This record gives sequence, structure tokens and C-alpha cells, in this order.
Amino acid sequence: MEKAVLITIGDEILSGNTVDTNSNFIATELKNIGIQVIQIFTISDEIDTIKTTLKTAFELGDLVITTGGLGPTRDDKTKKALAEFFNDEIALDEVTFNHLRNYMEKRGRIDILERNKEQAFVPTKSVVFQNHFGTAPCMMMEQDGKLSFSLPGVPYEVKPLIRDQIVPYLKEKFNLYYIHTRIVSVVGIPESILADTIEDWELALPGNMALSYLPVGTRVKLRITASGENEEALKQQAEHEIQKLLPLVEGHVIAVTEDKIEKILAELLAERKLTISTAESCTGGELAKMITSNSGSSKYFLGGIVAYATEKKVQILNVSQDTVDQFTVVSEQVAAEMALGCQKLFDTDISLSTTGVAGPGKGEDGKEVGTVFYTIRIKDKEVTSKLYLPHLDRIDFMNFVSQKIIQDLVGLLISE
Amino acid sequence: MEKAVLITIGDEILSGNTVDTNSNFIATELKNIGIQVIQIFTISDEIDTIKTTLKTAFELGDLVITTGGLGPTRDDKTKKALAEFFNDEIALDEVTFNHLRNYMEKRGRIDILERNKEQAFVPTKSVVFQNHFGTAPCMMMEQDGKLSFSLPGVPYEVKPLIRDQIVPYLKEKFNLYYIHTRIVSVVGIPESILADTIEDWELALPGNMALSYLPVGTRVKLRITASGENEEALKQQAEHEIQKLLPLVEGHVIAVTEDKIEKILAELLAERKLTISTAESCTGGELAKMITSNSGSSKYFLGGIVAYATEKKVQILNVSQDTVDQFTVVSEQVAAEMALGCQKLFDTDISLSTTGVAGPGKGEDGKEVGTVFYTIRIKDKEVTSKLYLPHLDRIDFMNFVSQKIIQDLVGLLISE
Repeated sequence: MEKAVLITIGDEILSGNTVDTNSNFIATELKNIGIQVIQIFTISDEIDTIKTTLKTAFELGDLVITTGGLGPTRDDKTKKALAEFFNDEIALDEVTFNHLRNYMEKRGRIDILERNKEQAFVPTKSVVFQNHFGTAPCMMMEQDGKLSFSLPGVPYEVKPLIRDQIVPYLKEKFNLYYIHTRIVSVVGIPESILADTIEDWELALPGNMALSYLPVGTRVKLRITASGENEEALKQQAEHEIQKLLPLVEGHVIAVTEDKIEKILAELLAERKLTISTAESCTGGELAKMITSNSGSSKYFLGGIVAYATEKKVQILNVSQDTVDQFTVVSEQVAAEMALGCQKLFDTDISLSTTGVAGPGKGEDGKEVGTVFYTIRIKDKEVTSKLYLPHLDRIDFMNFVSQKIIQDLVGLLISE
Repeated sequence: MEKAVLITIGDEILSGNTVDTNSNFIATELKNIGIQVIQIFTISDEIDTIKTTLKTAFELGDLVITTGGLGPTRDDKTKKALAEFFNDEIALDEVTFNHLRNYMEKRGRIDILERNKEQAFVPTKSVVFQNHFGTAPCMMMEQDGKLSFSLPGVPYEVKPLIRDQIVPYLKEKFNLYYIHTRIVSVVGIPESILADTIEDWELALPGNMALSYLPVGTRVKLRITASGENEEALKQQAEHEIQKLLPLVEGHVIAVTEDKIEKILAELLAERKLTISTAESCTGGELAKMITSNSGSSKYFLGGIVAYATEKKVQILNVSQDTVDQFTVVSEQVAAEMALGCQKLFDTDISLSTTGVAGPGKGEDGKEVGTVFYTIRIKDKEVTSKLYLPHLDRIDFMNFVSQKIIQDLVGLLISE
């Protein structure tokens, strides 16, 4: 199997200003064509550091992909380091310059072409992949049969370059191994008990298969990876092993194919022709966003309310003011009434509601930070649960609760 | 200034299954106490790789922080590597075991203590920082005055360990330099023109100050970092340089302190005592989530609607069916009516609306993927704009549009 090393260049990630999402995207795309990312370096944009890291990277892998440090500003040094490392010089590339001119003309920015002209200078030995969504081109260099690609750092530019140009190129260039991955989602067993339960099965896995435990909230994702030359055989092999696994964790598996919880939900809803709506307070829109982040969600998701202010819960979701007065707004009673009101408003089979205190400030009624009640209503049945997550910061809290409520819904639908 | 190196251990990040958010959190926390992260290694959990990387990391920095590879399952190898690297042995630590027993008792999981007992085995030379939100302890090792901390990989466990234990420890242990950071947010100038415009100013910055360009959507964040021994002096110095910068980019600056767009908005709304609500279609809740991710948002955000289905736009937001029929649901007319309906429903000063096609599938009326209309309504004024972003995938699209609409709103409020 080909091995890849990623190098993320620039101050943005090291300073904590930006989360590195490029590596995740690139690793996934490469995995799909059988290339394994074995190491990622995140370094500052100093010429010496870049050169040292390129050297190490070429020792470790067959393929090196760098992102970042190609902008038109003074703090970008990747290209210089690249030329020095490959004993090359930088020169104006006419094709790239024409591409750049067209790009800027289309955007009515031809007046600043001079400043950007620098970006059409590339190492003379490089093969250029033109960037259709930005001004910095992608440069490929070759050394002893090993390849490096240098891309800009902006995710919107990285994604199309990788997906539309580099992956197709690599697929054609190399005779690649296949990697087949399956995810089995297990709920209701702590990771350590799960490990005990399936230990014998794990130890008996064939040599070309590997198992990883990926905990997400209260779910453990078991990832089974198989590599080999024949894609169809790998698929059968993985299915075969999963069939042996399932009886060991009976009653705890909520999915054996999809990875993301919103996709698992999507398949169930589509299969059963069910519609869904949401009424959120403390999750602030995250629950709706998680559901709608799945393409095709408009088929089953009819809409949602973020009823942040208490009076909006009363006015729009028809929560009774008496209930609020008696039990406070963060209560199982209010959660249940929100779900009922939501189901009626959107006329859906299922409705989900959340009411709680995401913090860090206390809720208006003095409820503890980290408390949340949520209701899942499926037709005329409803289940209300409570979570207490004082250790999570605001955004993690919104995310954890949304994950958990969808996971619970999936569990309820499966066990019906 | 102290220099830190981060090592992220485990297959989750390399395989593309998980985005590395720990590094971002740790880098930010360390920066705040004057410790600079100079490199991040993301490696697989093989003992030799871990040892080699520890060696390099100790050569590069004064402080090494590893995350991951400490779970109770078979694929976790960090502790073994740690003991070998430091010529140490692993032994049961009674204090840690008691902590673990208490932790599991509280959660009613004492039955599985044996399996987790392994987690109370630590290198004999290590100083343990107990983990209050998980079963794997944090271990500190020392070598030639340099420190390493090994943490589990779960973000919910990493954050409190870093924030509540490691950062306070480091602050006391080292006589740290201060780092002061300011972010100036510039809109409406492309990065390359901006670089030309402020080049002289940048070149004249004092030696202890550095400038970075961080593009986010259509905004460029200029980050000015100053380091030195006197915190107050640094603050004055940064303010002084920013005052020289501002006239150069007049009319384009939307914030000079806060970094995140939802925080910039929060300050403006609080200052002017304005309330806000949202009516979303193609952003699916992301806009509401972005606004509510700011703590204290309940003071100005009254609520939002995700009106995904067209009939819900008509029913709940009072969009006229005639308008939909005449102009289609993805149109400036529908965006404007959604904003108006939203403003009335939630009775807010400001309302925001989005209607578009996030893709990858075409919208029901055949509008191009990537098209979005959005309306910003401030009291009785409204502005409707269009974006066309066919190159963004679904989640990036939802995020980009939400960023842009809040950014536009900030611009409108400032220029009022």
C-alpha cells in the first residue's frame, strides 16, 4: 500500500487560531483510493523547517502533500523552500499566468494582477495543477519515483484540488491496493466492557484486517479495515467478520454501515417514510443543523424551531405558562410540551425537543449548568430523558446533546 | 519564550475519521500563558514511532504534550512507549487506583474495575494528574529540566486536564513571557490588495511583534502578536500599532478586539440593546447555532425557525404562496418575506433569513446548487443579497453563508 505524509505549513494551526480540517479531508480521500496517511506534520513557515520536514517526510512515505504557505503575503515561504529542497529555481510559468489572468478577469480584479503575478512563479521542474477557486496553483514535484504536491491552505481550495485533480491523477498513476472500511456503531456498553466482550473475535481477525475503537459521545464506533488487491473479496471478508461479531453485541448495535449518526437516522427515516421536526432551546440550532447536514434531509426534515426565549416556547410551541411556572422552563414537563407543540406545528411523525442550560452562565431559573431535558416523540409515544454534563463547554455541550438525542432516536426506532 | 511540541497519537486522526480539535485547544491555552507551540506531530500508535517522535520533540521544544493512546483497549500503546523512552517501568499507583475506584463507584461501574485497573499502572517516575472525567490519568515525566505530559485523547477529558491542572502548574513552574494578541477584522478588500496597502506599516512593526493574515470566508483577520515581559506594556504597544493601522484600512474594519464573528455581533447588539431572530432554509440551523454558540446570547437572540419545507415557510413565516409560485422558493422575494415574517413572529429588532440550495442535489424548483438569497432586516429597513457558491460542499456552504450574513449584518450596524 502507498504511504502518504501530510505537512501543514503556517502559523494559523500552531497558534490555535484555526482547526486543521484539511488533513481530515485529505486523509479520507486518500484512504478511499488505498493510500494510507502515516504521519502529519504541522510546522511553522520557516524555510529551514519546511526543508527538514520535507526530508523526513520523503524518508517515511511515497507521497507528500503540503498545504499552506502559498498566499501572496509576506509570511508565506513554501515555494522558496520547495525550490531549495529540489535544487530548482522559480520562474514565471506562462500557462499558470494566463490561468491566473483569466481567473482575476472573471472576478473583475485585473487591477491587482501585478501583486498576484508572483503566484504564477513556480519551480521549473514542477507540474502545475491549476487552482480554479483561488490564485495559488498546486505544484507537483518528483524525486526518485516519489511525489510531492504543494497546495494552498484554504479548505475551499484544497477540497476541489484534491478531489477533482490529485485523486484522479494518483488513481491512474499507481496500481493501488484497495482499502475497505466498515463501521459498526455500538451503544449502551462502555468501551472497556466492549473490549472484553469481543476480545476473542478481535484476536482471530485475519492479518489483513484491523480493528479500531472510536468513541463518540456515548457511542463506540468499531472500525474494521481490510486491505488487499480485490475489492469485492474485501467486502465479502468484512461482511463475514461482522456477521460473526453481531451476536456478541446483540441489542447494542445501531448501525453496521453508515458512520455519521445523521446518516444512520436518514436511512431509517427514508426506509420507514417518517418525517421529523425539532424544537430546541439549549442546543440553539445544532440539532437541526446536524440533521440537515445530511444531503437529502429535505425529504424527511420539515423544519425546526429554536425557541430560546421562554415566551416563544409558550407563544409558538404552545407550552403552557402554568407548566413553566410550576416546574421551571428546564424541566421534563416543558421538554415534553415542546415536543408535542413541535409535532403539531410541523405535522410530523417524530419530533425532538431540548431544554437546558448550556452555560457558562446559570439559567434564568437557577438550574445547574449542564442540565438538559430532551423529549423524543414518535407518533403518540414519547420518552423524556435527562443529561447532566457540567464538564462540557458550551459548543461541546450543544454537540454532545444533539448527537445523543439522535442516537437515542435511532435506538428507539430499531427496537420498535 | 518556552516552546512546546504536541504529539497526537492514534489512528483516528490519520485515518480521516476524526478532526483533531485537541491541538487547537491546547495551542490556544498555552499561547495565553506565553508558551508557543512550534510543531505538531500526528502519528500512529506504534511504540517505535512514539519513541522516535518523543526524541525529536524533546530536541525541538522545552515541553512536550501527547494526547491519545491511553484507553483500556488493545490498540493503545502510549504508556509502554513512554516507559521505554524514559528507561522506566510501569507499576500500579495506589493513589491513582483509589481515584479510579471512586470514579467508577460514582458511576455504578465497579464491576468492570479489573479491566480498567490497567489504567492505574503508570511509569514509576511519573507525576500523575488525576482525570476527573475519564479513566486514563495524565502522566508528567521530566528529563533534563524538560517536561512531558501524556493525556488521553478524548476532547472532553483533555480540556479540563489542560485548563484546570496543567496550565496552572506550568504558570507556577516557569517564569513565563507574556504574549498579547489582537485581531483586526477587515472586510471588502482582497488579501493581496490589503497586503499592498499595509506593507509599509507591517515592515515598520517593532521586532517583538508579528503579523499574520488569516482569511475566513470573505473576511481577513489580521493577527498582531506581541511578546515580552510586561503585559501592560505589550497591550499599550499593540494598541499603539493598531491606531496607526486603522487609517490605512478605513471603512473596512469591522472589529479590533474580538475574533469570532458571533462575538463581534454580540458586542454590537448588547451595546445597542437590539434583539435578533432567524428564519433559515438552506443553512438548516447553522445560523442560529452560530449566534447561540456565544455565551449570553439569550439576552439578544429570541429564537429562530428552520423552515425547510416550502409549506412551512408559508404557514409559519407567512410567506405568500403567490410569491413562491411567481418567483420560486429560492428568490430574493421569498427571502425578504421570510425575514419580515420572522421579525413579526419573534418581535425582534433584527431578523435574518436564508433560502437556497445547499446541494449536492438540485433544489425542488431546479435552482442551481450553491445559490442562496439572504435578507437582513433591521427595524423597517431590509437588504437582500445573493451568493453563488457552487464549489462548496454542503457543510462548508452552510457555514460560509452563516458567517457571511453575520459579517454583513455587523457591517450594516457599524455603518449606520
